[in-house]
Amino acid sequence: MIVDCDIHAATPPVDALLPYLSDHWQEYIRTSAFKGAVDTAYPPRAPTTLAPGAEPLTSVDVARTHVLDGRDVDLAIVNCNYGVDGLHNPDTAAAMAAAVNDWLIAEWLEPEPRLRASIVVPTRVPELAAAEIDRIGDHPGFVQVLLPVRSEAPYGNRRYVPIFDAAARHDLVVSLQFGGAPGNPPTGAGWPSYYIEEYVGMAQVFQTQVLSLIVEGSFDRFPGLRVALVEGGWTWLPSLMWRIDKDWKGLRREVPWNTQPPSAYIRERMRLTLQPMDAPPKAGHLLQVMDALGSDELLLYSSDYPHFHDSQLPDDLPEATRRKILGDNARRFYRL
Amino acid sequence: MIVDCDIHAATPPVDALLPYLSDHWQEYIRTSAFKGAVDTAYPPRAPTTLAPGAEPLTSVDVARTHVLDGRDVDLAIVNCNYGVDGLHNPDTAAAMAAAVNDWLIAEWLEPEPRLRASIVVPTRVPELAAAEIDRIGDHPGFVQVLLPVRSEAPYGNRRYVPIFDAAARHDLVVSLQFGGAPGNPPTGAGWPSYYIEEYVGMAQVFQTQVLSLIVEGSFDRFPGLRVALVEGGWTWLPSLMWRIDKDWKGLRREVPWNTQPPSAYIRERMRLTLQPMDAPPKAGHLLQVMDALGSDELLLYSSDYPHFHDSQLPDDLPEATRRKILGDNARRFYRL
Repeated sequence: MIVDCDIHAATPPVDALLPYLSDHWQEYIRTSAFKGAVDTAYPPRAPTTLAPGAEPLTSVDVARTHVLDGRDVDLAIVNCNYGVDGLHNPDTAAAMAAAVNDWLIAEWLEPEPRLRASIVVPTRVPELAAAEIDRIGDHPGFVQVLLPVRSEAPYGNRRYVPIFDAAARHDLVVSLQFGGAPGNPPTGAGWPSYYIEEYVGMAQVFQTQVLSLIVEGSFDRFPGLRVALVEGGWTWLPSLMWRIDKDWKGLRREVPWNTQPPSAYIRERMRLTLQPMDAPPKAGHLLQVMDALGSDELLLYSSDYPHFHDSQLPDDLPEATRRKILGDNARRFYRL
Repeated sequence: MIVDCDIHAATPPVDALLPYLSDHWQEYIRTSAFKGAVDTAYPPRAPTTLAPGAEPLTSVDVARTHVLDGRDVDLAIVNCNYGVDGLHNPDTAAAMAAAVNDWLIAEWLEPEPRLRASIVVPTRVPELAAAEIDRIGDHPGFVQVLLPVRSEAPYGNRRYVPIFDAAARHDLVVSLQFGGAPGNPPTGAGWPSYYIEEYVGMAQVFQTQVLSLIVEGSFDRFPGLRVALVEGGWTWLPSLMWRIDKDWKGLRREVPWNTQPPSAYIRERMRLTLQPMDAPPKAGHLLQVMDALGSDELLLYSSDYPHFHDSQLPDDLPEATRRKILGDNARRFYRL
């Protein structure tokens, strides 16, 4: 069984969302310059946008042809990185998120039982995000909540508790995904100058969030919480686990709700998608990093379709581990 | 030959600096609440502040007894993490930095030829920092400029060029060191809640700065530039090199001044102090990470005295590598 845990539906143009918006928002969009959260880091058909031979994922037919049938994938999780977190009007953000989710249900999940999807939420106002999760969280096609990894405060911050509370009510995974437009700098040293700094540096934001969720006690407060890290790389994880476990020994009186070393929360409750792999030039080093993860249950196969990655699992990976990464880990984690 | 590349002089109380301040600043301090940059993350004699048996490094005598003679160290680099970057009055910052540097010359470097030191500079106003480097940069005791790793903008930003220019004029290493108080959040996702997030997360700020210095072209602009990363860990480096090299292939048209892959700049021009080691539970994993660095010339021995670290170099490290780390790498890098 192969589960592709990260394929990207093309951001829908606003016309595609109009049927899922109320009369009020339809009129608002028709009579103003606002045309939805249209900003994207992926220019149409640029080399970084499309892998060779790939088509933009604009419809369920493309998903069937290029992913499910084309790659013998049994189940795929559709992520639509619709940038509602960049919308500062909270009601607009909530309306657009709901429209995207209803579009996902009607045009992806209902026609194709091999697809699953992530719930888009207005993260700036956690109470509205929770309401959206409550509205559609029991639809069997939704397996997780989509939070852009960039945020105004680290997600362990208590202001975000309503989102985690709602995810718990519907037994949904919380996923942190590449990107976001919260308005604050994407580094711990202010604004960088170049996109390569934003892209490469996204791995540091993932590290910040992993640490925050653990030490704020999110996993202690929500015993059923599972967190997926999507498209953030994973070869940085061993070093982070070593550092945080060591420093936690000296500083844990600050965070007494943690009942086990930080790496134990990671191994039990967090999973990471395979791409981008940030693979080393020597395949041997990649196997060493996989060994240093301390578990063969952490990685979830993902193609990141239609984006391009040329790295692959090492040829000499044990067959049992390969099976876990390709499908078993995801099936257990998402309860598919 | 053993070179300890990071020992910490205790932050001097303001009384100790008065002899090195002009009448104006002496009066200013005596008649106001301002008592220098006294904030410190190290409470006196707390377990995190002092290793067992260590004494606070309050004078050159302690350095002799506990480091130079006590540990058979041939040369040691004294870092005084005096927080001038937290002072927003630029003239105050410049005056206090100059006082600390003159205090370092008079009370550490002149009495003890086995010591070297880092120049404290007012980083908020790069032109003033450059002037301070020009004032004392030719003193043979100073081997590097001290920049707190946290900053308002990544250090590759063009606003900081005057500092790098001055370092080049005096052939000084530029060192990025743990800490800083620039006023902006220390993560790419806003303000965290706990000190453990600031401490562990400092490694992510180091990663941000490494990336910035490379892609902004600092090493291309200054062919003699060498950068030391002090007290930031180093087990995160292989993963960062893999990620940035890979993404640079796709994005290098953004930064055409880079003439070689990012990891080549790191291996040629950057060095990292040994502590904190963020060592894995299995010694074998540590040797694997050292191998993945791709060079045995990157690490510089440091005790971080008087702070406490219980990790050591692996017993089965090849003797030639051990010698390089303990002294040869530092001697070549700092031209000692």
